[in-house]
Amino acid sequence: MSHIITLTTDFGNGSVYVAEMKGAILSIAGDVQLVDVTHAIQPQDVFGAALTMRQFASSFPVGTVHVCVVDPGVGTERGILLVSSGDHWFIGPDNGALTFAISMANQVRQIDQPRYWNSPVSSTFHGRDVMGPVAAHLCNGVNPQTLSSPVAVEPIRLRMPTPMVEDGVLHGEIVSVDSFGNLISNIHKSDLPHPSSGLVVMIGDCRIPFVSTYGDAERGGKIALVGSGGWVEIAVCQGSAFDELECGRYTKLAVWADS
Amino acid sequence: MSHIITLTTDFGNGSVYVAEMKGAILSIAGDVQLVDVTHAIQPQDVFGAALTMRQFASSFPVGTVHVCVVDPGVGTERGILLVSSGDHWFIGPDNGALTFAISMANQVRQIDQPRYWNSPVSSTFHGRDVMGPVAAHLCNGVNPQTLSSPVAVEPIRLRMPTPMVEDGVLHGEIVSVDSFGNLISNIHKSDLPHPSSGLVVMIGDCRIPFVSTYGDAERGGKIALVGSGGWVEIAVCQGSAFDELECGRYTKLAVWADS
Amino acid sequence: MSHIITLTTDFGNGSVYVAEMKGAILSIAGDVQLVDVTHAIQPQDVFGAALTMRQFASSFPVGTVHVCVVDPGVGTERGILLVSSGDHWFIGPDNGALTFAISMANQVRQIDQPRYWNSPVSSTFHGRDVMGPVAAHLCNGVNPQTLSSPVAVEPIRLRMPTPMVEDGVLHGEIVSVDSFGNLISNIHKSDLPHPSSGLVVMIGDCRIPFVSTYGDAERGGKIALVGSGGWVEIAVCQGSAFDELECGRYTKLAVWADS
Repeated sequence: MSHIITLTTDFGNGSVYVAEMKGAILSIAGDVQLVDVTHAIQPQDVFGAALTMRQFASSFPVGTVHVCVVDPGVGTERGILLVSSGDHWFIGPDNGALTFAISMANQVRQIDQPRYWNSPVSSTFHGRDVMGPVAAHLCNGVNPQTLSSPVAVEPIRLRMPTPMVEDGVLHGEIVSVDSFGNLISNIHKSDLPHPSSGLVVMIGDCRIPFVSTYGDAERGGKIALVGSGGWVEIAVCQGSAFDELECGRYTKLAVWADS
Repeated sequence: MSHIITLTTDFGNGSVYVAEMKGAILSIAGDVQLVDVTHAIQPQDVFGAALTMRQFASSFPVGTVHVCVVDPGVGTERGILLVSSGDHWFIGPDNGALTFAISMANQVRQIDQPRYWNSPVSSTFHGRDVMGPVAAHLCNGVNPQTLSSPVAVEPIRLRMPTPMVEDGVLHGEIVSVDSFGNLISNIHKSDLPHPSSGLVVMIGDCRIPFVSTYGDAERGGKIALVGSGGWVEIAVCQGSAFDELECGRYTKLAVWADS
Repeated sequence: MSHIITLTTDFGNGSVYVAEMKGAILSIAGDVQLVDVTHAIQPQDVFGAALTMRQFASSFPVGTVHVCVVDPGVGTERGILLVSSGDHWFIGPDNGALTFAISMANQVRQIDQPRYWNSPVSSTFHGRDVMGPVAAHLCNGVNPQTLSSPVAVEPIRLRMPTPMVEDGVLHGEIVSVDSFGNLISNIHKSDLPHPSSGLVVMIGDCRIPFVSTYGDAERGGKIALVGSGGWVEIAVCQGSAFDELECGRYTKLAVWADS
């Protein structure tokens, strides 16, 4: 079906758990191409995992299998999902990590066929023992209907904070911080008034001009722009907005057209 | 022979030395699949390397070549080993990093055929110049007998601390800490009295209940359980036992059946 | 043409931007082998990127495509280069990151054919939208002449500090620090007087003996040696010279033959 499996976990960069999961996959599907998305999701940060899954998945070829193991409920009664969405496959625990895939899904199924799992299954590592093996079998061409059943309960979806308009001002909040210290908001470029030139952003007590790209300011200048994922973000030219503005996830921001 | 080579080093995440080693391998065996196990072994931590090698190797398919470069003695008289163990191949310096593979080995050989190495060989980077190339030639089907000779001296094996039983109490110690801050001990599930329900663990001045999985406690609860590798570990539910208990490698723990 | 693409960026270890770039590449060239060199270049450190590119590229097989995305000028007027050098291909922004490839280049071309890019092209992420796709098309066998044109302006090359000889003393400086804390200088082994035994290095107020390899000192001993890339470096046996000597990039050192 596909020959690419992507891996997104909170195991930590350089964690040996990642290798165990890769070994389990390659033992079943020896020719699969493994792509590490990130293993640096904060431990148990299901919301961060959900945002990450939304950001990268559509960059990959049709048929890619995306596995997300941020799974504080491992070994308890929580289900494990197999989601078909936008010509991609998603596998992860039923805890909200797959929120965006589910929102646009063709099918949401529950992984429940132990004969495709490692045996015995540990109670603490379903990435290695269940999700990895199922992803590998899927790549080998095993029918999704054989690996899973229709979900019996409504899968969990996280509520994403949505921006609001009040008196011509767009109110949103920071939802993530990237490795450059750029602050990514929940305001999409499609939410912005047109044209976006002349827009102003207020965050904390800083009034920040809207520009097109990072190089459109002097070194150290604070700027707002539409980032590569289509979301409004706050940056410092050749610096870190996270360090300089002391803002982070949940910080509010407002956007309006200066006139 | 195989088409997978795993890499375990202390070069650091994102070290360019890893890329040099990969380039050397791919220059010889262009189609090999490279798997980074970890490059975050603490510098020169041969004991940590040995534990890591034990943890992941058996997850991989038969015939995988596992290369371990934690090599403070590079360029001195220490040998380089080629070990056949459990249908896998292991390559690493003769300093104890391959202790577990050697314990169960079919063959332990010494890599000593410079015509299969990079030329000239540096005195400081045998991962790139010797071990990587030999792993690549092995994957290409070169006979192990051509690449190496029987060892002339007994290879180094590290002494692992073993748990002891005294008056019905099992005494062990923490040997590693994972990326979640879980404290992994040297007590194996096969050492535990049956059944394991009702077991109690004492570490520092904490008395900790034995459970089945991480989700079996309230957030912040301290728990003991059998981890995914089969070893008793101490965890904090959705937290870090390492941070909260201020324990680490060498900390003692005791297990007994509460009655 | 080739089936290997290497990636060198300042996106950070575990950054999801890396995954987006990989997805873009694999969507065009599904069978390419991706090698992460490092994503831990310091943000916007073009000089560090240039040194990294020099260090690893020649380890790879002929025909490898090396992509470097350290690109503070993304979205501004800076060009994007395609360089053919030493039987390898290099793709990166025209900001000096490809200094060494350019120095030995057969051809330096400018990437300017948008029909081979992602559409629409973002103004903030040309790694995903331009450089990755062009690398993928190159691996697919698209003619470099079709992807690019001769450069219209002289490409930017960084000035590298060069060592100087004065009264029989060789003066250089530290240009990078590796993950072990070894201090790498700009003095090449070919700059050294012969024989190198009996050489002495002065850095800060430390007088340091010249040895052959890291194991040639007691634990904690300060040593100078020729590292695996051919450059003189300062190390501490089983320790970190960076931590102990409090030196770093730009620190001066001097080498002379003790007599």
